[in-house]
Amino acid sequence: MQLVNGIEETTIDARDRGFTYGDGVFRTFPMRAGTVPLWPRQYAKLAADGAALSLECPSPTILEADLAKIAAARPDGVIRITLTRGVALRGYAIPSAANMTRVVSWNAAGATRAAKDDGVHVRWCDFRLSVQPALAGIKHLNRLENVLARSEWNDAGIAEGLLRDVNGDVISGTMSNLFLLRAGELTTPALKGSGIAGVMRDLIIESARAEGVPVHIDRVTPEAVRGADAVFLVNSVIGVWPVAALDAMSWSAHPFAGRMRLWIKNAESC
Amino acid sequence: MQLVNGIEETTIDARDRGFTYGDGVFRTFPMRAGTVPLWPRQYAKLAADGAALSLECPSPTILEADLAKIAAARPDGVIRITLTRGVALRGYAIPSAANMTRVVSWNAAGATRAAKDDGVHVRWCDFRLSVQPALAGIKHLNRLENVLARSEWNDAGIAEGLLRDVNGDVISGTMSNLFLLRAGELTTPALKGSGIAGVMRDLIIESARAEGVPVHIDRVTPEAVRGADAVFLVNSVIGVWPVAALDAMSWSAHPFAGRMRLWIKNAESC
Repeated sequence: MQLVNGIEETTIDARDRGFTYGDGVFRTFPMRAGTVPLWPRQYAKLAADGAALSLECPSPTILEADLAKIAAARPDGVIRITLTRGVALRGYAIPSAANMTRVVSWNAAGATRAAKDDGVHVRWCDFRLSVQPALAGIKHLNRLENVLARSEWNDAGIAEGLLRDVNGDVISGTMSNLFLLRAGELTTPALKGSGIAGVMRDLIIESARAEGVPVHIDRVTPEAVRGADAVFLVNSVIGVWPVAALDAMSWSAHPFAGRMRLWIKNAESC
Repeated sequence: MQLVNGIEETTIDARDRGFTYGDGVFRTFPMRAGTVPLWPRQYAKLAADGAALSLECPSPTILEADLAKIAAARPDGVIRITLTRGVALRGYAIPSAANMTRVVSWNAAGATRAAKDDGVHVRWCDFRLSVQPALAGIKHLNRLENVLARSEWNDAGIAEGLLRDVNGDVISGTMSNLFLLRAGELTTPALKGSGIAGVMRDLIIESARAEGVPVHIDRVTPEAVRGADAVFLVNSVIGVWPVAALDAMSWSAHPFAGRMRLWIKNAESC
């Protein structure tokens, strides 16, 4: 099921700048029993990402009406909201007259969350992310780097790939944010030049600090990953995946995963 | 007028990976009196760009049938061919079952070509291109950098902006390739980390070399641009635009523009 500008529709105009240039932003998050956990955070991030591209986000009311329509038909699943610069004639210049396109779509949830709570196997991607401070952190529609990185493996036993940038700094997974635990302190990559700053990343940072757990938002080297007491991947759909193995390395289960899940649970029930 | 997979159609599936991730390639070129000048070069470049993303280009016969349909209705204009990874479920992994989407669209030609043959005013963009060797040269659908660079000015008297990369090297215009003339020799940026290697760029390089004009494909500094005897912007739609002014600098008309246009004319009539 899918709504385009609020109307149930399977297609978009082929002149849409989302299609022709990737000129837009999106978010992906779960819907459970007809409600979106952490919706205010999802909305705030969508609006902030849009603003970074001078795209004015529709009001919460408009998007909530879309979500309610979907919830009535499909209360459980994964929702994607996409906002684009709209339909326009050819040319990179932003047209003054374009009206944003808003797509809210329902997707079946994967069976991955619980199945991978005990830990996942991951790999290093060879592909290196470029450094572009003007787009770093934003969940925009230009995702070829993620596609190319994810195309490196087909082994269903590998749940995620870790990405480095062209300088060799570790940035994230292909579709998740990264946290390292060492001596009771968390570190997550700074995302000043690459990567997507997800809602779960923010939530973990805030929750940790609220409980007095130091969080370093900094450059991360591959050596720091290998030297961590525990490694975690997070996003809004998967929650928290502890990394059980990275190539030849392995980690035992660590109780900190449960603590992170509790932070998420508490935030979701607010 | 627009064909989607050969059928006249204004829309595409909103789950198309061209829309969701910018997972595809495109080309833009003129159609004149129902024919596409330099079509073999356009096709070869489209196929090469597709191959770089593991997208198998449709045969020339298929695309030529699309072009013939458009030519019958709209013999003059600007054509855009877009190839994407097709419709798929959520997730960056390339689906084994996806069928490519092929969009061939007609657009009205701008009145810009002849009007700007005497020289254009250009500016330096503040926006810096990222360095991504895996995508450099390819005309893929991730064009937010071009959109952001082009959004820096609204003055209709400025025809193009010159782009530098994060290292400060000059790469191209926002929608054109760049040539410098100095002491009878041409230089064009190497495009190893950024930019799009257009059909006209290749044609000029080959034609110049065939006539014994040295062509350097190399790093280009802003100082080299300022020190050039003449500066030219080229693409398949605009042909050759001599740069008459760059911020406070100006250049007089140079006969080399006519020579480049003759190379294009000769190649088009082959």
